Amino acid sequence: MGPHPAVATVRHAVRRALADLAAGDLVLVACSGGADSLALAAAAGFTAPRAGLRAGLLTVDHGLQAGSAARALDVVRLAPELKLEPAEVLTVRVGTAGGPEAAARDARYAALGEAARRHGAAAVLLGHTLDDQAETVVLGLARGSGPRSLAAMSAVAGVYRRPLLEIGRATTRAACAALGLTPWDDPHNDDPAFSRVRVRHRVLPVLERELGPGIAGALARTAALCRDDADALDAWASRAHAEARAAAADPGGSGREPYAGAEGGSGREPYARAEGGSGREGGAGAAGGEALAVAVLADLPPAVRGRVLRLAAFAAGVPAGSLGAAHVREADRLVTEWRGQRGVNLPGGVTLYRRYGRLVFAGNG
Amino acid sequence: MGPHPAVATVRHAVRRALADLAAGDLVLVACSGGADSLALAAAAGFTAPRAGLRAGLLTVDHGLQAGSAARALDVVRLAPELKLEPAEVLTVRVGTAGGPEAAARDARYAALGEAARRHGAAAVLLGHTLDDQAETVVLGLARGSGPRSLAAMSAVAGVYRRPLLEIGRATTRAACAALGLTPWDDPHNDDPAFSRVRVRHRVLPVLERELGPGIAGALARTAALCRDDADALDAWASRAHAEARAAAADPGGSGREPYAGAEGGSGREPYARAEGGSGREGGAGAAGGEALAVAVLADLPPAVRGRVLRLAAFAAGVPAGSLGAAHVREADRLVTEWRGQRGVNLPGGVTLYRRYGRLVFAGNG
Repeated sequence: MGPHPAVATVRHAVRRALADLAAGDLVLVACSGGADSLALAAAAGFTAPRAGLRAGLLTVDHGLQAGSAARALDVVRLAPELKLEPAEVLTVRVGTAGGPEAAARDARYAALGEAARRHGAAAVLLGHTLDDQAETVVLGLARGSGPRSLAAMSAVAGVYRRPLLEIGRATTRAACAALGLTPWDDPHNDDPAFSRVRVRHRVLPVLERELGPGIAGALARTAALCRDDADALDAWASRAHAEARAAAADPGGSGREPYAGAEGGSGREPYARAEGGSGREGGAGAAGGEALAVAVLADLPPAVRGRVLRLAAFAAGVPAGSLGAAHVREADRLVTEWRGQRGVNLPGGVTLYRRYGRLVFAGNG
Repeated sequence: MGPHPAVATVRHAVRRALADLAAGDLVLVACSGGADSLALAAAAGFTAPRAGLRAGLLTVDHGLQAGSAARALDVVRLAPELKLEPAEVLTVRVGTAGGPEAAARDARYAALGEAARRHGAAAVLLGHTLDDQAETVVLGLARGSGPRSLAAMSAVAGVYRRPLLEIGRATTRAACAALGLTPWDDPHNDDPAFSRVRVRHRVLPVLERELGPGIAGALARTAALCRDDADALDAWASRAHAEARAAAADPGGSGREPYAGAEGGSGREPYARAEGGSGREGGAGAAGGEALAVAVLADLPPAVRGRVLRLAAFAAGVPAGSLGAAHVREADRLVTEWRGQRGVNLPGGVTLYRRYGRLVFAGNG
């Protein structure tokens, strides 16, 4: 008799996710003791040795709930039964930056990444399911920040792999039951203070009721399509960024500012002047030597130009996460609606000017 | 004293939407008598003459409700007060194809387009608001068909313009009230048999309550970003399609199938053979002469390759609307996971084969 269908489904997904690893490689399962990661851990303990791989277990003690250390120990104690070795508790201190969910996530990934390096693991497996993916899409929608945030979670991201992204939570629960494993139900998963919990318990059931069953699958498909789109546009933007930079740096090119000092070399442009009359004049250091040829930017579709402007802003020292859509829109107007306007103030003390056919990022330094 | 702020907001949006038209041009407002299109009609009647334009009104009688003809006449009778001329009732017969909402929409747009041509209108204005846009995004999400359906409605599409896409329904209601206009409340707007009505009354309020106010705006921003992304990728795909076709047709190129009959000219390829051993052999006519070089396709990111395969399938005679994600995935495997598999059956009796470095679309004709 074969395994229960739910168990087989989870094992199959894990086998596929590990197919490219080399014999002897170590995979570590991040396991909270919840149904998803418990089913994942069991499947990895079964599958990995049969594929010539080693599999271990990590569990994170966030120290946020009474008894969390004891619970983490319980998870680790399951490891021998699941054929996982090594098995380790990672104790973290959760900060406050970005809210409780983000702070816990940051602490968790930092600890998992460190443990992966220390053990020389080829992969860390995460138990996110189709339902988690659907929730992430809805949270991304609420931010209104477009396809990249709708792309939600990637099946592979650096050392992390998410084998269960196409499998629903009902399947991981059924797999645990079939294997006689009792999952731990994190009380945080029922705390409506967390927006993800509200999406899970209050938003998705309504979507399902009003728009038909299978909404989680539809959201996950949307995520995958958005991810492919975003990847393609990021690749285009990266090429266009290099081109716009090269054209701005070309001394013979039309994008050259004739009275400016050396670009690129020192990263400073001491005598630069604003192209119109109203911009700030002189004194600003070119931030990171970042300058772009307007002619290259003007030829790009808006979606790609916006991405190039973001890439350039980050290269010029604008802190990641601080650049809003309004900044990018203002920067874009220097290309598409040029009428001699002032420089655009960006976060991190960076200003963007248009000067003689180039966009130049100037720092306050 | 200036106009009520809501009236000013709607007028401003209409003025911007008409800014590129030439003196004497005619714009026609599609007006159901509901608050959105009534506010739009009033704004057009005020704004157009001041911009040197002419503005008229169209109202569609779908014949789906008792008294619909009388109501349509009531709307037309408002036109002189709103300074709109000509004003015309378009009586349509709604079919059943695609469900009641789609059938009514198809009939409506057919009639509006015909009237626009007959009157020589430069633009037809539609009253869709930010709230309609948000609803459309949620409906697109439920389909799971990715960024293009999340892109929702365009501000400009052919002769149609939607000046109110950034304005909420509350503003159009307030504008009507301030102008002493009594909007007609379509009972269909409260009929939960329509998925859009369920989204409006049951889904969006829940999203708003659980994820914070401003969700409609976030969804509309998502739509705009998805639209820009989709436009950029469509442009890329269109170029890549031409390239892949040219490389497949190049007699000296490596993408050439050596034993095939003439491509392009007759649109038939009588002696073509399957590249692997397992495919169907001979007898199939090349559909629309459509063939693509695998080498070009293989270099594209998946999001662009998928779009090229769709474009090529439509060019080969696959009926629009019938091509599913699973078809595109199977077609993609002929490029990315080639192991001599059989041809892929597409809707409309078209089959896609891989033959000596080319994908060839074959019809049953």
